[in-house]
Amino acid sequence: MASDYFHLLNLIGVAFFAISGTLMGHEKNIGGFGVVVVASVTALGGGTLRDVLLNHPVFWIAEPDYLYATYSAIFIAVIFIRHLSHVSNYYMLLVDALGMAIFNIVGIEKSLIEGTTMIVAITMGMTTGIFGGLMRDVICREVPLVMREELYSTACLSGGLTYATLSLLEVSYVWCILGALFITVFLRLGSLHWGWQPNIFRKRSVRKQ
Amino acid sequence: MASDYFHLLNLIGVAFFAISGTLMGHEKNIGGFGVVVVASVTALGGGTLRDVLLNHPVFWIAEPDYLYATYSAIFIAVIFIRHLSHVSNYYMLLVDALGMAIFNIVGIEKSLIEGTTMIVAITMGMTTGIFGGLMRDVICREVPLVMREELYSTACLSGGLTYATLSLLEVSYVWCILGALFITVFLRLGSLHWGWQPNIFRKRSVRKQ
Amino acid sequence: MASDYFHLLNLIGVAFFAISGTLMGHEKNIGGFGVVVVASVTALGGGTLRDVLLNHPVFWIAEPDYLYATYSAIFIAVIFIRHLSHVSNYYMLLVDALGMAIFNIVGIEKSLIEGTTMIVAITMGMTTGIFGGLMRDVICREVPLVMREELYSTACLSGGLTYATLSLLEVSYVWCILGALFITVFLRLGSLHWGWQPNIFRKRSVRKQ
Repeated sequence: MASDYFHLLNLIGVAFFAISGTLMGHEKNIGGFGVVVVASVTALGGGTLRDVLLNHPVFWIAEPDYLYATYSAIFIAVIFIRHLSHVSNYYMLLVDALGMAIFNIVGIEKSLIEGTTMIVAITMGMTTGIFGGLMRDVICREVPLVMREELYSTACLSGGLTYATLSLLEVSYVWCILGALFITVFLRLGSLHWGWQPNIFRKRSVRKQ
Repeated sequence: MASDYFHLLNLIGVAFFAISGTLMGHEKNIGGFGVVVVASVTALGGGTLRDVLLNHPVFWIAEPDYLYATYSAIFIAVIFIRHLSHVSNYYMLLVDALGMAIFNIVGIEKSLIEGTTMIVAITMGMTTGIFGGLMRDVICREVPLVMREELYSTACLSGGLTYATLSLLEVSYVWCILGALFITVFLRLGSLHWGWQPNIFRKRSVRKQ
Repeated sequence: MASDYFHLLNLIGVAFFAISGTLMGHEKNIGGFGVVVVASVTALGGGTLRDVLLNHPVFWIAEPDYLYATYSAIFIAVIFIRHLSHVSNYYMLLVDALGMAIFNIVGIEKSLIEGTTMIVAITMGMTTGIFGGLMRDVICREVPLVMREELYSTACLSGGLTYATLSLLEVSYVWCILGALFITVFLRLGSLHWGWQPNIFRKRSVRKQ
């Protein structure tokens, strides 16, 4: 049953990231199937890295329904985009936040199932959540979201810590997931809306740059 | 016998990509052995990712003759370049197209041998064909070929579909390979020469950018 | 005992690269935990790729003390940076050189233990030494050190060849390691200080660019 939840979550996360890649590809005006390549890398990159690191069979090779989810999400996103007069960059950031929050949890859970310690699991969650979007930004020559001012890795880490805490308190699965999702998305979107900024680890005089 | 073909194809593909990396590194005026690093990543990147994803032993670790092919091709390319007064960017695109077409087929075939479904195999072919050149472009801070206007991923996908179709029709190996190679290279070079452009998945008003 | 040396060397290499990533992240004024992400990728990237290629368990998953070393080094580096009025880019290049020299040796040794040939081992050493810093530069949108004028891959290769030669001459472990470290760091820092430049593999007329 828990495994069903995670299968579903993974599918939804893949679809969100596929849409974020499509939106970015559209923004960058990529021709032909290049958009499909970028969106696929975004959707599958994080989970692929996670499975390779854990020495698991790669999820989309073992279960091709992830590929169908990816390609369907791209196809639907392309159709919608073509019929909208204006697509705001905000949608990209929104689906990216949702995908990142979901992949974070899936990464932690898959890692814990493998019997790793919690510090490895949280690192793996961040890897899974961040890597797909990072590859999208690198390929599209954008400043990676991880490097921008808004809470990104901080939101991801907070979600991971929430999941770990709730899980240690033996809260039921569904609430662990919902709690971690809520915290991640709340911090991330809150930062985008209200300009919350973390000021740890920063240069003192910003003028310098 | 089929395995011999693929060994040979792989060697040729590796050499083509090594040359493309050398040409790009030369263009970028990289010093010292940096050119060798970039060219090696280009030559070995796609196949390495394929083997890691399929959980195969990595091809150049299992059979070091791929390393010899890579380093020989780089060495020969460097000598030629130094004795030519002018090296056009066109050569880079040409060897890249040939390497991509070959790696595409090798990726599909290796994946099918592992018993994956066709959709996974075609995805794996594209991964193998595109990833090495993508890493070259990212390291050299060029706009990745995948993102440019010319048919690139579309040519790769068409070659993969050709191979799949001919293979399903039980055409003999050699013709499957030649057919897929021809389609990929024809579309790619046709696009470069005559400016063929795919207009699917594109923004309607290009002016916006 | 040899394995103890390499465990210690690996820990030191990880810490050096973590510091180099922190310095780069600071330079780029990354907010929040983004610095931790970039520094972790720098510290763990090269070794992770090495273990994945050799089909080993990934070192920081098998032994989480590497994660503690990474996070501690980042934490200490952050504290130091905040209390210094000016951090020169030179420190980044210095710790990067030390980390690269160490990872080069660890990569060669791990590869030889796996029974690969020397050409594969030297390639693996360069991969381990260069990849983490390369990812740091790509994520931070800097010109990768590998592409710059100063001896970088050349120093790395020279260190690897030194290690291979001393190892073949059956010199004791400690001297193999010290010799290779010395050659790599000496060439790299010498190039930075006195502007040594390799002029092989270069365009004849530099004016062109």
